[in-house]
Amino acid sequence: MFEKEVYVARRRALLQKMKDCKGVVLMLGNVDSPAQYRDNCYKWRQDSTWLYFFGIDEPRFAATIDLESGEEVIYADDFSLDDIIWMGPMPSVASLAAKCGVEKVAPYDALKDALKGRQVHFIPASRHYNASLLSSLLSLDPSEVVCRGKKACPKASEELVKAVIEMRLVKEPREIEQIEHACNIGYRMHTAARKGIRIGELEQRIVGQMEAVTLSEGWGVSFSTILTQHGEIFHCHSHDCLVESGKLMVVDAGAENNMHYASDFTRTYPTGGKFTARQRDIYTIVYECNELVYNMVRPGVSYRDAHLAVAAHMLGGLKDLGLVKGKVDDMVAEGVCGLFMPHGLGHNMGLDVHDMEDYGEDLVGYDPDQSRSSQLGLGSLRMARRLREGNVITDEPGIYFIPALIDQYRRQGTFADMVNYSALEKYYDFGGIRLEDDLLITADGVRRLGQKRLPIAPDDVEQAMKEDNLY
Amino acid sequence: MFEKEVYVARRRALLQKMKDCKGVVLMLGNVDSPAQYRDNCYKWRQDSTWLYFFGIDEPRFAATIDLESGEEVIYADDFSLDDIIWMGPMPSVASLAAKCGVEKVAPYDALKDALKGRQVHFIPASRHYNASLLSSLLSLDPSEVVCRGKKACPKASEELVKAVIEMRLVKEPREIEQIEHACNIGYRMHTAARKGIRIGELEQRIVGQMEAVTLSEGWGVSFSTILTQHGEIFHCHSHDCLVESGKLMVVDAGAENNMHYASDFTRTYPTGGKFTARQRDIYTIVYECNELVYNMVRPGVSYRDAHLAVAAHMLGGLKDLGLVKGKVDDMVAEGVCGLFMPHGLGHNMGLDVHDMEDYGEDLVGYDPDQSRSSQLGLGSLRMARRLREGNVITDEPGIYFIPALIDQYRRQGTFADMVNYSALEKYYDFGGIRLEDDLLITADGVRRLGQKRLPIAPDDVEQAMKEDNLY
Repeated sequence: MFEKEVYVARRRALLQKMKDCKGVVLMLGNVDSPAQYRDNCYKWRQDSTWLYFFGIDEPRFAATIDLESGEEVIYADDFSLDDIIWMGPMPSVASLAAKCGVEKVAPYDALKDALKGRQVHFIPASRHYNASLLSSLLSLDPSEVVCRGKKACPKASEELVKAVIEMRLVKEPREIEQIEHACNIGYRMHTAARKGIRIGELEQRIVGQMEAVTLSEGWGVSFSTILTQHGEIFHCHSHDCLVESGKLMVVDAGAENNMHYASDFTRTYPTGGKFTARQRDIYTIVYECNELVYNMVRPGVSYRDAHLAVAAHMLGGLKDLGLVKGKVDDMVAEGVCGLFMPHGLGHNMGLDVHDMEDYGEDLVGYDPDQSRSSQLGLGSLRMARRLREGNVITDEPGIYFIPALIDQYRRQGTFADMVNYSALEKYYDFGGIRLEDDLLITADGVRRLGQKRLPIAPDDVEQAMKEDNLY
Repeated sequence: MFEKEVYVARRRALLQKMKDCKGVVLMLGNVDSPAQYRDNCYKWRQDSTWLYFFGIDEPRFAATIDLESGEEVIYADDFSLDDIIWMGPMPSVASLAAKCGVEKVAPYDALKDALKGRQVHFIPASRHYNASLLSSLLSLDPSEVVCRGKKACPKASEELVKAVIEMRLVKEPREIEQIEHACNIGYRMHTAARKGIRIGELEQRIVGQMEAVTLSEGWGVSFSTILTQHGEIFHCHSHDCLVESGKLMVVDAGAENNMHYASDFTRTYPTGGKFTARQRDIYTIVYECNELVYNMVRPGVSYRDAHLAVAAHMLGGLKDLGLVKGKVDDMVAEGVCGLFMPHGLGHNMGLDVHDMEDYGEDLVGYDPDQSRSSQLGLGSLRMARRLREGNVITDEPGIYFIPALIDQYRRQGTFADMVNYSALEKYYDFGGIRLEDDLLITADGVRRLGQKRLPIAPDDVEQAMKEDNLY
């Protein structure tokens, strides 16, 4: 964890932001999460909000911050001698609390009484256990303490959620250092992936090599690795195919370092080491879109505008290839881009790879004067805000040819005058391409995070694959 | 999954065993388990009981088996076109159900009505989500649908639990094949560990290399890897130390293959490649205990007796070293062994690495005429039963010098006439040793699982470490 003063300062800033509120802030750390039976758990991962304000990386901790008196209490149970035999000498709750500057501690089960009769401000729960616990502590229905979809959670404290978002959206220098560390692990993870892509190799074996890097150098993956020759399927987590020649391999993967900060990169490789002409055409458009974002973002520019600029450039490129037709501005306005890129341009990144996603996407990613589009693609944009120094965002344009979606639109007559559906038919076996970097908004511009940038220009990718000595 | 007939036959066998029961059997598959926010989940792992009877390796499935009519229904929801855009073409619920021989399907939410007014037989829940779901479906308190400790779950169906235990304790040949596959992955995982143990290496880097093997060849680890120079701490999952010279490194780790069967091995290595005389003395006792079990088990022998035979041999060896004194039989009867081996000799292994642990340890591991000891060590024995052909068990004796425990016993005067506490003082920095193999009980004896046995005899361990070219 960081030094004590960091957590003290963050909680003080939170109190300041909530100075007009009454009651008590409740924060819950995670408990272990069983994979098989109750004592065989997944690798321990603390709740991100808890980590931000208290840093204690142990299960079954909770805390209250009294908004009226300022009193802070940590609730957790000390280990018994029995525990110590099985788990070794363990620090006391009081000594852990002291590490984040909290003086008062109480048993975990004292939490219920501490909340009685108070107005309780809480953050929506992410895990099933904490949702149950919150609902039982606060006598609410479990569905009322979690976010469903993009909207805010019905009973969570909007004041608290907004205050924490304001803080966590702007990364501290020490956080940027950690994210950069995660990016450097991500670089090595992706390099292992690129070197692993040989015709005939089992995808799962490549994924295993990638995870070795993240587990050796950090906590593990920041999300389930996507490594697929079906880039058009966004949430493809199966890795049971052999690498075939002539395909595009989308690798979307990130690392979490031991301080639990995330990285998130995507590269797309020609499986034989050389792009076909058709692959290179589409790849080049996506690459230019990725570069365009880097060249336009700075404080004050909204990421919604960056998404729209990408849409315009992408549609211009697809028009040159004869896949769409008409005026680019009209196509952008109609949302034609969503047929090819049905996702948003990027998201915030920090302790969560989609930072604070469970706080309610609209609260996290939209300024008060912005509202979410209903168009496919733009409507999925997680981060639309005007950028500020200290924001860390992903820049991840992509072009996909999704047969089920194209068929549906064609059948419905959607964009009939703007999309050349018969030309698209030839792309049904194309797959998809996505290219993603992690960006830090600086005082006067932007910086790509990570010591080195993964090869991305088409020639550089081919050169790197050649140097990998595989082709 | 296995072919359809396997699941049909298992469910038929279950119905037969429960032919005197009324009502309906309810089985719940798992749902995804969030690591960070709700959409960032840990690697998907299906519930083991569900896998055994239905095999469908997808989230959010449930089933009922009517004990009166024999009707089987699978409850799950088909994917929408939206899902298909994000997840690719997905098989229908009906086609998945057909793969395990179930004809009738219904939406997931139809489950509640299907259970109304029926006597419901269920297995205790392992995960938080399923505990909540069971408690809501059956209007029970969440604490009543899970096991706490070693005893049976208060409201789970003892008939169902006992019937399933009877089936799963005896592995089918196809299961043994799968376990053996997991053992072979485990062999390569442990070989990577042994090769990684070099003075100055970070433990976490070795663990990363081990996990690369399990993720490349199988589902992943069958439980959180233990790799520690503090073998006396049983549940040590931190890997933040550098390998130091003169230590003993306990590596307790296993793999789960893609069919979700487990392996579980332990080896203990001298970090410099050579045992000291003192290390070799203790190591040899543990090694002999491991071999002794292999040489004595066969159908009809109780594993409780194997544990006691190990206790006797271990205490004899420790007596020769001057660490305990008196008659071995008396020491065994008093439970002196628990001071050095405060755990049981082994456990059942299958789809869970501690097979069916959440069913209630006593139900799983004890014959009706056996009861659990209250002694430290023997009291932790998970598998005490008389062995039967097809049982798969671990053989994992260990000797540990746990300062906190020794101090406590000495202070209390426990075993004052049998333990040479002053001689033990010199072992406070020793650590621990555990040596574990996976055994299959055959018709007339026993077979170690896995194509090759990891080097275990002290000379073989030193030779292997030499050949690893590290020393």
